[in-house]
Amino acid sequence: MTANTIQLDKQGRLKHFLTIEGLQKSLLVEILDFAESFAGVSGRAVKKVPLLRGKTVVNLFFEPSTRTSTTFDLAAKRLSADLLNLNMATSSTTKGESLLDTLQTLEAMHSDMFIVRHSNSGAAHFIAEHAGPHISVINAGDGQHAHPTQAMLDMFTIRRHKPYFETLKVAIVGDVLHSRVARSDIHALKSLGVNDVRVVGPKTLMPASIERLGVEVFNNLNEGLNDVDVIIMLRLQKERMISANIPSEQEYFDRYGLTFNKLKAAKPDAIVMHPGPINRGIEIDSQVADSDQSVILQQVSHGIAIRMAVMAMTMGNRPEGNI
Amino acid sequence: MTANTIQLDKQGRLKHFLTIEGLQKSLLVEILDFAESFAGVSGRAVKKVPLLRGKTVVNLFFEPSTRTSTTFDLAAKRLSADLLNLNMATSSTTKGESLLDTLQTLEAMHSDMFIVRHSNSGAAHFIAEHAGPHISVINAGDGQHAHPTQAMLDMFTIRRHKPYFETLKVAIVGDVLHSRVARSDIHALKSLGVNDVRVVGPKTLMPASIERLGVEVFNNLNEGLNDVDVIIMLRLQKERMISANIPSEQEYFDRYGLTFNKLKAAKPDAIVMHPGPINRGIEIDSQVADSDQSVILQQVSHGIAIRMAVMAMTMGNRPEGNI
Amino acid sequence: MTANTIQLDKQGRLKHFLTIEGLQKSLLVEILDFAESFAGVSGRAVKKVPLLRGKTVVNLFFEPSTRTSTTFDLAAKRLSADLLNLNMATSSTTKGESLLDTLQTLEAMHSDMFIVRHSNSGAAHFIAEHAGPHISVINAGDGQHAHPTQAMLDMFTIRRHKPYFETLKVAIVGDVLHSRVARSDIHALKSLGVNDVRVVGPKTLMPASIERLGVEVFNNLNEGLNDVDVIIMLRLQKERMISANIPSEQEYFDRYGLTFNKLKAAKPDAIVMHPGPINRGIEIDSQVADSDQSVILQQVSHGIAIRMAVMAMTMGNRPEGNI
Repeated sequence: MTANTIQLDKQGRLKHFLTIEGLQKSLLVEILDFAESFAGVSGRAVKKVPLLRGKTVVNLFFEPSTRTSTTFDLAAKRLSADLLNLNMATSSTTKGESLLDTLQTLEAMHSDMFIVRHSNSGAAHFIAEHAGPHISVINAGDGQHAHPTQAMLDMFTIRRHKPYFETLKVAIVGDVLHSRVARSDIHALKSLGVNDVRVVGPKTLMPASIERLGVEVFNNLNEGLNDVDVIIMLRLQKERMISANIPSEQEYFDRYGLTFNKLKAAKPDAIVMHPGPINRGIEIDSQVADSDQSVILQQVSHGIAIRMAVMAMTMGNRPEGNI
Repeated sequence: MTANTIQLDKQGRLKHFLTIEGLQKSLLVEILDFAESFAGVSGRAVKKVPLLRGKTVVNLFFEPSTRTSTTFDLAAKRLSADLLNLNMATSSTTKGESLLDTLQTLEAMHSDMFIVRHSNSGAAHFIAEHAGPHISVINAGDGQHAHPTQAMLDMFTIRRHKPYFETLKVAIVGDVLHSRVARSDIHALKSLGVNDVRVVGPKTLMPASIERLGVEVFNNLNEGLNDVDVIIMLRLQKERMISANIPSEQEYFDRYGLTFNKLKAAKPDAIVMHPGPINRGIEIDSQVADSDQSVILQQVSHGIAIRMAVMAMTMGNRPEGNI
Repeated sequence: MTANTIQLDKQGRLKHFLTIEGLQKSLLVEILDFAESFAGVSGRAVKKVPLLRGKTVVNLFFEPSTRTSTTFDLAAKRLSADLLNLNMATSSTTKGESLLDTLQTLEAMHSDMFIVRHSNSGAAHFIAEHAGPHISVINAGDGQHAHPTQAMLDMFTIRRHKPYFETLKVAIVGDVLHSRVARSDIHALKSLGVNDVRVVGPKTLMPASIERLGVEVFNNLNEGLNDVDVIIMLRLQKERMISANIPSEQEYFDRYGLTFNKLKAAKPDAIVMHPGPINRGIEIDSQVADSDQSVILQQVSHGIAIRMAVMAMTMGNRPEGNI
C-alpha cells in the first residue's frame, strides 16, 4: 500500500501522519492553520486544552531522541492526553516477543496513538499498516526516510516570516544524503508551491537522483545561497564525515559551515533554520546561530504547536471554532 | 501473620491485594463484577474516572517488567491517580538505605499505594506488614509465589467466555514449578468452584506435592488437555530448560508446545490463554496464538480493568452505583 | 551578579530560589507560613491544588537523586503542573550541544520552571542568570554550595517543634566540609535569629573559616551537643572518610555517631534530624533514628510542603486566602 492509502481516510482526512510525500497543499495548509491556534495555547497562563483528554498516547522510541520525544511528550500533555513513554531500545516488553506482538499488546491496552521513532526507514509505515482501526500512528523519524512533523514545523516557521511560498528561494545545506529532514522538507516545500528549492553540500553527501524531487544541486555554498530567502542547515553527524571523505570538522566548516560572511550571498532578510541540536563551529557559526536572522528557537516552539495539531487531527479533531 | 489477616480489614474488605490463597469466592466475584464496570471505561472516548484523583500511587518494581508496570501505570492514570514510577533495581533511593527506610520515606511523602514487583517470594507480604495504616499494597508478582492480579484477569477472561465455573475443566500447561501465575490461577479456580483443574508439564518442571492444591498432574499433554474448556499456557523461561533437562526448544515444543493438532484433544470451543509475552514456536504455535480460540489479547485488556478494580477497592471504593 | 540580585525581583519577591544566603527573615517566614497551608493539602483525601495547572516544570537533574527528584515530582503533581523529568546525566538532549543551547531549547518549549541539581557549585545560579524572564529556577542542590529547599524543610520541622528560634541551641554534626545542607542550614538558622549554632565534626571535615558564618566549632561530640535543642546529623559519604583520615566506619561511629548515650548531653526534649538517606550504625544509631526524638520522617513530609510553597511563590503565587 502507498503511504497515502494508509495515512488518509476515505474522506482524505489524516488518520496517520507518516510522510509528507504525496500530501496535497490544502492538507498541509490545514495543518499549518490548525497549528496557529495551538501556538497561542503555549503562550497562555494555562497551557492546556482538553482535546485528547482520556486518550492514551504511547511514545514508542526505538531510537533515542530526548528532544523529539520531549516535544511530543509536552504536546500530549498540553492536549490533556495520558502519556506512556516506552524506551523500546531497553524495554523488557520485547523479551522474546515480536514487534507485532508488542504492538497488539499495546493496542489491547486501549492505546489510541503510537508516536514512532525508528532507525529503519518505513518502520512507522509498517506499524500503521498493521495497527488496529482505532490507532493513529505518527512518524517521529524513520531511518533516512521521513520526519514529517519536523518538516511541518519548518513550514510553519517559514510561513510566519515569509508567507508567500510561491516566490521563495530555499536552500537546504549539509548532509542531504542521510537526512530524513531534508527529504520531508523538500516534499513539503514543493507541495506548498516553492519553485526554487536547492540542496547544497559535498558530492559525497548528496543522494543520487535527488534532482528528481524538483530541486537543484549545488556543491558550492556561495552559489547555493545566492539570493535565497530561507536557509535550512542540516545537522552533521560526525561519524559520517569519514564516509564523506571530509578529513576534519574544520575543513567541513570552511566549505559548508554557515558564517556571517557566507550568509551575505543570501537575501539580507533571509532566515536561518536548523533542526537542532546544533553543532556550533561545525555546520554553523555561533554568531549566525545567535543572530536575529536565526529562527532556530522559534522552530522548537512551533514544533509543539505542529505536533499538537497533527495529534489532534489524526484523532479526528478539526480546525474549527475556538480552542 | 497470615496473608488474609493482613490483606483483609475487620469487615473482610480488601485492604491489600497480596495473594488469592484463602480469599472467599464472594470476594473474588466482587472483584470480577467491579472490573466489569471498568472494562466499559476503557472503551469510552474519555477513558478516565475520578475515583483515585489526588491519590499517589507508587510503582515499586524491584524486578523489571514493562508489560505489568505499564498496565498498572495505565490503570492508575485511568483512575486519575498521580503515579510515581520507581525503578528500584537502579534507583539511588536505596543508596546505603534499608528497604524499610525507603518505604517509610515514601510513606512520609504521603503515598497511598505501593504496587510491588519483587523476585523474592513474600516481598509484597513483608511490605504490607510493615506499611503504615493508610497504605495499600498490591502484589504485582513476588518470586515464584503469587501474581494475584494476573490470576484475576485470567478468571475475568474465563468468565466472559465460560460463565459457569463449577462445570469447567481447566488445564495449566508448562513450567508450573517456577510459575507464580500457575499458583495464583489454581487458588482462584478452586475458590471459584472449578473442580477439574489439571497441571501439565514435564516432571522436572512440576512442584512436589502440587496435588495438595486440589489439582491433577499430567506429564502427557494429550491426556492433560482431554475435553478441557480452558487451556492456560505458561511462559517458558529459556534458562530454565537446562535445569529441567530439556535439551532443546524444539524438543519442548514437540512435547508441550500447543499446536492445532494437539488442541484437538480439548473441547472444540476451548479457549487458549497465555500471560504473555508469548514465545511463538516454543510454548505455543503461531497459528494457535492467532486463532479465534486464543483470548490472549483479551487478557491484556482485562488486565487493566482488573487492576483498576483492585486498586479502587483497596482504596476503599465499592462496586456500587455508576462509575 | 549576587544571588539576591538574581533570585529576588524588584519588589523583593522570590523569582528564583537559589540560596538562603542573604535572604531576610521575613521572606523565610513567609515561605514557612505558606508551606503550612500545603502541609494540610498532603493530608487531604484529594492531595491536589490547581495553583500551577497548565504550567510546565522541568526536573533537570545533572546529578542523580531519586529522593529529592521524587519530592519535587510529587510537589509539582500536587500543584497540578505538567512535569518533565530529564535525566541530564544520560540524556541525548545534550549530544554535542552546550548547556545553554539545551536550556534555550527547553525555554522555547515554553517551560515555566527548571528544578536544577548539579555537582558543580553555582550551576543553578548560572542557569538562572541565563534563563529567560519567564523562567523560574529552583536549586535542588549544587555541589558543596547550597541546598536551600532542604534548609527550609529543616526550618519548617524545627519550628513545628521549637517555635522560638531566638533562644534555640542547634548543633550540626558530621561532614560539614562537603555539606551543602550544612551551609544552607547555617544561613537559614542565622537569618531566623538563632544565636547558638554549632558545627561538630573531625577537623579534617570542617571547612576553614567556618566561624565567619557565626557558628562555633566543636571537634568533640559531647561538648558540641551540650544542652542543645536541635541536632542536625549530616550524611557521611563513605568515600570521604579516607580523605578525612578516618580509618573505619566503626571509628567514625564511635566518635561522631549519635547514640542514646551521647544524646544525653542534649536537652531531654531535643529533636534529632537528618536529611536522609540515613546510614544506620555510621552516623546515627538505629535506636536514635527510630526514637520519639527523631523527626527524620517528618522532614520528608515537610519537604513536599516546602517545595510546593517555593514552587508556587516563584511562579507568582502569594500566601493569601485559602488554598
